Amino acid sequence: MDRREFVTAAAIGGSAALATPAIAQGKRTLTLVATWPRGFAGVWDSAVFFADGVKDLTDGNLTIDLKAAGELVGAFESFDAVTSGQADMYHGADYYFTGQHPGYNFFTTIPFGMNATEFTVWYHHGGGRDLHDELGKIFNLKSFIAGNSGAQTGGWFNKAIDTPEDFNGLRFRIPGMGGQVLTALGASIQNLPPGEIYNALASGAIDGADWIGPWADESMGLHEIAPIYYTSSFHEPGAALTVATNRDIWDSLSLAHQRAIELTCTAAHEWCHALFLANNSAALARLKAGGTDIRVFNDDLWDAFGTATEPVVAKHLDNDLYKEIFESYSGSLRSTAAWLSKSSGIYSKQRDRVLGI
Amino acid sequence: MDRREFVTAAAIGGSAALATPAIAQGKRTLTLVATWPRGFAGVWDSAVFFADGVKDLTDGNLTIDLKAAGELVGAFESFDAVTSGQADMYHGADYYFTGQHPGYNFFTTIPFGMNATEFTVWYHHGGGRDLHDELGKIFNLKSFIAGNSGAQTGGWFNKAIDTPEDFNGLRFRIPGMGGQVLTALGASIQNLPPGEIYNALASGAIDGADWIGPWADESMGLHEIAPIYYTSSFHEPGAALTVATNRDIWDSLSLAHQRAIELTCTAAHEWCHALFLANNSAALARLKAGGTDIRVFNDDLWDAFGTATEPVVAKHLDNDLYKEIFESYSGSLRSTAAWLSKSSGIYSKQRDRVLGI
Repeated sequence: MDRREFVTAAAIGGSAALATPAIAQGKRTLTLVATWPRGFAGVWDSAVFFADGVKDLTDGNLTIDLKAAGELVGAFESFDAVTSGQADMYHGADYYFTGQHPGYNFFTTIPFGMNATEFTVWYHHGGGRDLHDELGKIFNLKSFIAGNSGAQTGGWFNKAIDTPEDFNGLRFRIPGMGGQVLTALGASIQNLPPGEIYNALASGAIDGADWIGPWADESMGLHEIAPIYYTSSFHEPGAALTVATNRDIWDSLSLAHQRAIELTCTAAHEWCHALFLANNSAALARLKAGGTDIRVFNDDLWDAFGTATEPVVAKHLDNDLYKEIFESYSGSLRSTAAWLSKSSGIYSKQRDRVLGI
Repeated sequence: MDRREFVTAAAIGGSAALATPAIAQGKRTLTLVATWPRGFAGVWDSAVFFADGVKDLTDGNLTIDLKAAGELVGAFESFDAVTSGQADMYHGADYYFTGQHPGYNFFTTIPFGMNATEFTVWYHHGGGRDLHDELGKIFNLKSFIAGNSGAQTGGWFNKAIDTPEDFNGLRFRIPGMGGQVLTALGASIQNLPPGEIYNALASGAIDGADWIGPWADESMGLHEIAPIYYTSSFHEPGAALTVATNRDIWDSLSLAHQRAIELTCTAAHEWCHALFLANNSAALARLKAGGTDIRVFNDDLWDAFGTATEPVVAKHLDNDLYKEIFESYSGSLRSTAAWLSKSSGIYSKQRDRVLGI
């Protein structure tokens, strides 16, 4: 399959439909559409960090006007809005846009994929960044990673999950390839935008939902409407966030303004990852104190997740660019993971043992 | 003990001795003294990343003139050179400057301390950054972390280390508190600047040396002159690098130029950490193929390191600021580590098991 087959009509018509960015007295404002509601913990904070950084770095000459999901376009319309020029940039999770190209999965997270640290190795020094750019060129986008959730949790359930069969018939909210894996286990999957998760679960339209982790989930109120919470999961070991700019807009920017976007994105990735980690420990303790039943998936479940993941990830290998990304990603993962287990892996195990953590 | 007791004469005289930075046609050049020889793997790369970023972000109006160790001042003179105004900034490891204040240990790494990810949590969201700034104010510096080595190795030895007694009488190069821990085990410790390690080991002046990890160590040639290499160690689980600017120079910069320094440092921390990780796996394989005897410290040694570390870290607790930093760091470490073991810790273990990594 040719790598351009996934191009949408909106992307092809992108340049022609391009809006002129707001320019007044030498200052310029770019409109950013986020896939998050305003104020959502961690993800919106990352967008604000990005906008503040760019404004400061450019001495106020380049301003990012943040639009939350629904303010200009819906969360999942963000991609097409930027490729078509209706908006100048988006801040979101690229795996929301796998309908545009399945290669976008790798630039958020895939089941049994990289953690946030491993991802930075691939992205900055293992070819990931160039491949992100190659995907972007198809859709008239210039993309950079700009945030990370860290390892996500298994989500909220109304019953215990003890065997793979317990997923059978379960109506569950989960995006990306993780959803396809649970579909293979018999679940009925819905990929709702973040702003619709709470109401769907509260109304009983779904039986359970994955969001991010203790802090963001507590902030969304999911503990109020589901009794059981699974911590570490197979499907999102380190979900990256992306800032993607319409490529015609990008090309019209000075090198200094381009680099302001790029380097603020890199800084945002680390800052945002640290923000999630800084808040999750205390949030988990609060959830536990509040009566949430906190559990971990057993080895049999992990094995079932692994077996079901293989065909899901392999499904698009007939697409050249997907295959190229997959092979680059997989090689980097194995190399980095092997070193990490010999270095910080041994260290953490010994430190936590000696200090009693 | 008062927190200002560690102030050096050079620092107190700093402002008066301040040189005027080079200014030509609205452009400004700041002189940076690095604690590394030119081209040293990873650490010098990080300084170059920083200088390139600042130049681009400021449209060439702020240029960083990189001076390697020995070009303007010696590696360990960098700190005093910047506090006194002889140079404008340094790029180095703050634990080289624990003679100025023992609190600087925490802004590189301490034995049984944080890994690189845990460090970013404390630094950006747990009070670390403000404490770095408080230390800096004493010495007329504005400091930001700007690189990280990741978990370091135990180093190069001319004999196997099987028991704590094997350190007795060993002449070993290792900086910071790690050196004090090995001193407690009977080793004879030398804290040589990076540029002097190879010759000292080659000449037999020392029996062994720690540097960074497989890639940087191989690049320095240490495998040519020592037969045994220990991987994961207790003493440097994630050594941060710092860019510190003379505070009078800092105060004279525009907000945009200050933010260019700050955000490029944050980006450099992630980029540099990823760079080390990207190269270590293959370098370790080459070392092994080349005949290096690669080993790990046993549990008894880790226990001995742990016992010897406690008094070393506690030694300066009568200094108010050191105590404040220690308590902030320790609390953040335990909180983040507890969450990480429940999230990415479980994930990595299960993933590596299922995928056979």
